[in-house]
Amino acid sequence: MTTSPADFAARLRARERILGYWVVLDNPVGTERLAGLGYDYVCVDAQHGLLDYKGTLGAMTAIDARGTCAGMVRVPANDGFWIGQALDAGARGVIVPLVNTAEEAAAAVRACRYPPHGVRSYGPMRSGLRVGPTPAEANEQVACVVMIETAQALGNTAEICATEGLDGVYIGPSDLTIALGGRTSTDPSVAEAFDAALTTVAEAAKSAGIAAGIHCPDGVTAAKRLAQGFTFATVSSDLVHLEQAAAAHLRDARG
Amino acid sequence: MTTSPADFAARLRARERILGYWVVLDNPVGTERLAGLGYDYVCVDAQHGLLDYKGTLGAMTAIDARGTCAGMVRVPANDGFWIGQALDAGARGVIVPLVNTAEEAAAAVRACRYPPHGVRSYGPMRSGLRVGPTPAEANEQVACVVMIETAQALGNTAEICATEGLDGVYIGPSDLTIALGGRTSTDPSVAEAFDAALTTVAEAAKSAGIAAGIHCPDGVTAAKRLAQGFTFATVSSDLVHLEQAAAAHLRDARG
Amino acid sequence: MTTSPADFAARLRARERILGYWVVLDNPVGTERLAGLGYDYVCVDAQHGLLDYKGTLGAMTAIDARGTCAGMVRVPANDGFWIGQALDAGARGVIVPLVNTAEEAAAAVRACRYPPHGVRSYGPMRSGLRVGPTPAEANEQVACVVMIETAQALGNTAEICATEGLDGVYIGPSDLTIALGGRTSTDPSVAEAFDAALTTVAEAAKSAGIAAGIHCPDGVTAAKRLAQGFTFATVSSDLVHLEQAAAAHLRDARG
Amino acid sequence: MTTSPADFAARLRARERILGYWVVLDNPVGTERLAGLGYDYVCVDAQHGLLDYKGTLGAMTAIDARGTCAGMVRVPANDGFWIGQALDAGARGVIVPLVNTAEEAAAAVRACRYPPHGVRSYGPMRSGLRVGPTPAEANEQVACVVMIETAQALGNTAEICATEGLDGVYIGPSDLTIALGGRTSTDPSVAEAFDAALTTVAEAAKSAGIAAGIHCPDGVTAAKRLAQGFTFATVSSDLVHLEQAAAAHLRDARG
Amino acid sequence: MTTSPADFAARLRARERILGYWVVLDNPVGTERLAGLGYDYVCVDAQHGLLDYKGTLGAMTAIDARGTCAGMVRVPANDGFWIGQALDAGARGVIVPLVNTAEEAAAAVRACRYPPHGVRSYGPMRSGLRVGPTPAEANEQVACVVMIETAQALGNTAEICATEGLDGVYIGPSDLTIALGGRTSTDPSVAEAFDAALTTVAEAAKSAGIAAGIHCPDGVTAAKRLAQGFTFATVSSDLVHLEQAAAAHLRDARG
Amino acid sequence: MTTSPADFAARLRARERILGYWVVLDNPVGTERLAGLGYDYVCVDAQHGLLDYKGTLGAMTAIDARGTCAGMVRVPANDGFWIGQALDAGARGVIVPLVNTAEEAAAAVRACRYPPHGVRSYGPMRSGLRVGPTPAEANEQVACVVMIETAQALGNTAEICATEGLDGVYIGPSDLTIALGGRTSTDPSVAEAFDAALTTVAEAAKSAGIAAGIHCPDGVTAAKRLAQGFTFATVSSDLVHLEQAAAAHLRDARG
Repeated sequence: MTTSPADFAARLRARERILGYWVVLDNPVGTERLAGLGYDYVCVDAQHGLLDYKGTLGAMTAIDARGTCAGMVRVPANDGFWIGQALDAGARGVIVPLVNTAEEAAAAVRACRYPPHGVRSYGPMRSGLRVGPTPAEANEQVACVVMIETAQALGNTAEICATEGLDGVYIGPSDLTIALGGRTSTDPSVAEAFDAALTTVAEAAKSAGIAAGIHCPDGVTAAKRLAQGFTFATVSSDLVHLEQAAAAHLRDARG
Repeated sequence: MTTSPADFAARLRARERILGYWVVLDNPVGTERLAGLGYDYVCVDAQHGLLDYKGTLGAMTAIDARGTCAGMVRVPANDGFWIGQALDAGARGVIVPLVNTAEEAAAAVRACRYPPHGVRSYGPMRSGLRVGPTPAEANEQVACVVMIETAQALGNTAEICATEGLDGVYIGPSDLTIALGGRTSTDPSVAEAFDAALTTVAEAAKSAGIAAGIHCPDGVTAAKRLAQGFTFATVSSDLVHLEQAAAAHLRDARG
Repeated sequence: MTTSPADFAARLRARERILGYWVVLDNPVGTERLAGLGYDYVCVDAQHGLLDYKGTLGAMTAIDARGTCAGMVRVPANDGFWIGQALDAGARGVIVPLVNTAEEAAAAVRACRYPPHGVRSYGPMRSGLRVGPTPAEANEQVACVVMIETAQALGNTAEICATEGLDGVYIGPSDLTIALGGRTSTDPSVAEAFDAALTTVAEAAKSAGIAAGIHCPDGVTAAKRLAQGFTFATVSSDLVHLEQAAAAHLRDARG
Repeated sequence: MTTSPADFAARLRARERILGYWVVLDNPVGTERLAGLGYDYVCVDAQHGLLDYKGTLGAMTAIDARGTCAGMVRVPANDGFWIGQALDAGARGVIVPLVNTAEEAAAAVRACRYPPHGVRSYGPMRSGLRVGPTPAEANEQVACVVMIETAQALGNTAEICATEGLDGVYIGPSDLTIALGGRTSTDPSVAEAFDAALTTVAEAAKSAGIAAGIHCPDGVTAAKRLAQGFTFATVSSDLVHLEQAAAAHLRDARG
Repeated sequence: MTTSPADFAARLRARERILGYWVVLDNPVGTERLAGLGYDYVCVDAQHGLLDYKGTLGAMTAIDARGTCAGMVRVPANDGFWIGQALDAGARGVIVPLVNTAEEAAAAVRACRYPPHGVRSYGPMRSGLRVGPTPAEANEQVACVVMIETAQALGNTAEICATEGLDGVYIGPSDLTIALGGRTSTDPSVAEAFDAALTTVAEAAKSAGIAAGIHCPDGVTAAKRLAQGFTFATVSSDLVHLEQAAAAHLRDARG
Repeated sequence: MTTSPADFAARLRARERILGYWVVLDNPVGTERLAGLGYDYVCVDAQHGLLDYKGTLGAMTAIDARGTCAGMVRVPANDGFWIGQALDAGARGVIVPLVNTAEEAAAAVRACRYPPHGVRSYGPMRSGLRVGPTPAEANEQVACVVMIETAQALGNTAEICATEGLDGVYIGPSDLTIALGGRTSTDPSVAEAFDAALTTVAEAAKSAGIAAGIHCPDGVTAAKRLAQGFTFATVSSDLVHLEQAAAAHLRDARG
């Protein structure tokens, strides 16, 4: 496939099937390796992850050094400064957590766009090399995705999906599970409600013509979610996989 | 098993079977997780790895925060400052690269010991909390391991193993493979010579009554090496495993 | 005494007498030493202090490496992201500055709790190892303390203390002194009003059955505050004590 | 001229002609050099720039090491925590971005002042050495400047300038150009509206008796703006000038 | 021109005319911009510069993110660890300071090559993605350049240039000027001896068939040196140019 | 007293009585405070301390921001790169550890001086602003002090002190105590030998006309050492004093 990171937002909007990887470690050399494996995007987590802004800059640079993968950032909060900073760093898309209403989704969109479509402030310190270069082009090339992960958001799914300028919605399964009454972040006792919520979100996104994404614990689940109607899926995450791998090797070593 | 990190050097000297994990990432939160999995030690690589001294300090602290695993450092070079700094950080043992002769091995040992047994300078900025506290006790509780990974060292194996005060030798398979004429770091065309070298080192260590260790690409190989007569084996490494895991999940996601 | 850091929130809620130390320096090795002296908690200051998130993570890890002391964080502001991030790092309690009303106190509490009791987002990157592990257990094991340090807050003390789920209130003497009209942060001319404010807060906390804490310049004052009815007191701080010690040694050196 | 950095706010308020330089790089050694060239102030950009808080602290320290120049910070957002943190670091003034209304300007002013004039929290971790020392003196010695860079702000210029306690307004030409419909951040097609906006702001500031500042791409423009009625002008920036210089030398090298 | 960074060593060996830029700042975003201007290489200075190893890694990644420029490192000293670390980071060449004799030059060469041509240790943590991948290929693709900058080295120029495997020599004009008796690093009173030294080195390199490089204060000098027979020239440096630019703009601003 | 940091080396050479403080923490804000207390110098410890090169640069800048105190660095080892780097950072003197012979002392001196008096390489990245500016002046303004802390050095005291160009010797009491057979770094059982060693060193320095310095645990000891004939004394250290202060306040708090 001959896609380019510059096409990322367009592919997302076109509801192409897209796969990503999730990074919580401040680990630019590792992120550079991950970015060359064939994932369409790598998303660094600035909310729960272990990267500060220098880490985000380093990760975006590392991803660009491979040249074949788009960098995304899950921003700390639905806040203009955090969103603008991630985009200045060269992210080709943001995932905005904890969006509960259409108004909040609209604020996230505005934070991603320069006037007249939004309120983003101009200072593309690193992205100026790669995204745009004009404000209108940058507006076009950046994807704005909001998370649906609370009970309130679930009730507002259709309205959120209908937000003008929004490019996609994204399910955070851990928070959603807890929001649905789960006792752990993967509680199977709420599986039915969880599956129904996934259907609700995927269908609302389809109706609105925007992308529907979801966080997945592994590749098998990602494949399943794409088959269920999600258009993009992230495999999570470096920290978890590292711990799993090290535990598996210890079992092997002990025979 | 009720072992304590404080017993690490003693267990190594007693030629107990010991398993470790290899860390090249500056990733204290991940290292803390790895240190709780059941490995006897975690060794951070300050030669080829991506940690500076703050990273080494952070890794040693993270390992100690789990309380069940010993921290080791593969130091940048056979140099008194680098060795002393790793020990000041709280390492319970060092792996010294590129040792070619018994004289060099003796220098590594001296760098690990306070007078009268060596030339280590006193300033246990972090280790003072944990190792020792007296110089004599610290000398006893710190393991000095040197690497055999060059053609010259291989020829000097017996002399190196006989170095007074040395606690163990450690094979670096990549460098050794290249030293034996391999075209890559895992070249199977030198497998016979490689296996012979392993036998040479393991037997020399046994004769000298010191530990014999080796770096392994995976847990299965580690088990095999312990069965072959090595007394400690490190499974390597976080960066490699991360890349392998992410690639495997991508294959799964693509179905 | 055989208390454990895991009991910290329970002890605080039980209004046990608790002593802490205040850290503004990004100094993990020093913090590890401080955490072993016998203080019940060490609180790192992410509002006025000199630590960024990596510093907070390092401090929490260093505290846990001693195993006997609870880590707290004074967060930058009453904001869900900052509070969640501190808890993800493994803090066993947060001190939230500049809370003026019961509504603001309730928001602080919600930021500390997962649903259904709050809005904390799930991603306990480091705390998952230690606090919980279930959301309900994590809710139980984390202490939420809000600061009373403005004129407005002082007027709302009773309402703030009555906030459901709040574990304690904490006086910031410098800000409170200035709020009371002091010309410096320790202005004795407002001592009477200051003492009255302390009584107000300590009694309101007692009536509400929550903990009452206060920042103290030294150990003698901490003892006095505990005798006056406060249930926890922090001795402040590493930076101030360092300057005092160095000045004292200079006087000694000059004879 | 025998001015001192301590006089900075007073000079700004007196509408003296003042020149500054803009720093986006985390480069304390370079900033120390820049601070000795004769500029009245160096402003580090914590909104679009590449410095985190440690970078801001390092820059303020580097500026003070030259002793002749005032340090300013363009804060990330109009938020009490960000403003207070910049002032704690020793900034002698802040430039607050994206202020749209007089209410927002008043909030920025309050964030800069201790009670009773504002809500700044006390903890002058670094500034305590240099600014003040009493809260009243610190209030006096710190300049609060807000940016006018949106269409909404332009419409509210007079009201913003009339904000009690405000020391100056500052034009962000890039954002203003885009707000006026420019297709790039320097679009000449909106030059007329841009010039009119400059006149509006400079005159409103003059009427209100506060300083009027503006960001300039080069020294020639800075001279022109001061001649047009602006009282302070910043030459921008290290990153841009570095790229320009390197490009110019390459042209020279190629002949 | 359709050259690739992968051809860098080959072009240097072929004595092509090559231009570079010198970076002393830990400034990855700026370095990324510089790397896209058309210079053939950017060399980061780990001897006198302000970058630690993380800075070097970040600079190499930033250079690779542009895709058109080769990264070099001037290493701290002629030491196997420093040289290997720079190459592990992905440098396509090293400049080794303070080489005085042919023996020292041979040691620098050995440190750059894996066995059997040298003693480099295998662990291409970042360079494994880009340089090689086999040891033999990596040996081929990495340039080893040593500095001639002392009186002793000048006397040994021919012998140094004849070192087997050496790819180039490089003049450090500041140290050379002082070595020749200059009272400053650019003392014109030793211009004649300086020019003679340049001729000596350029001709010796030509005779030996290796590259001859030199550090230059500006582009005009670089052009002159290439015309004089040097095959590569570096324009120096970001820190100096930044100070010059800021001073020039201040003069302009003052009219 | 109207001394200036620029006079530091001259005062040391004149055997004036000088007092310093020892810093092992990477804590620029604290170091800035310490530098204003009245100590003649602050020495940061790059051997056993917790600062990397950025920390050393930050400490030197912080010291210079107070303007009244000289910055020194105890370098990691007697190595040209480490010594040059400390001086490039702006140190006005270095303390070189583990010097055993006059030859080693002479090497330390040469590393501190530009040709023709030494082999220091030119690149005073930060010191160029403050020390010198010519090489000859920089040679004059920088103090070279070597440590006597081993049995071998003690035996060579007279020869070391006679090293041409050496400015002072410095006793490391911990290492010296262990070298004399002490079981701890302060073992009183070797007090007699220790006192004799002090006399030996102080008298040898006096005979040679160079400064004699010593590390002291506290101000009282510093006063005593100056009275005994030492010309400079360092009070040690921030980390120790911080722990002592926190412990004392805890005792006070517990009543």
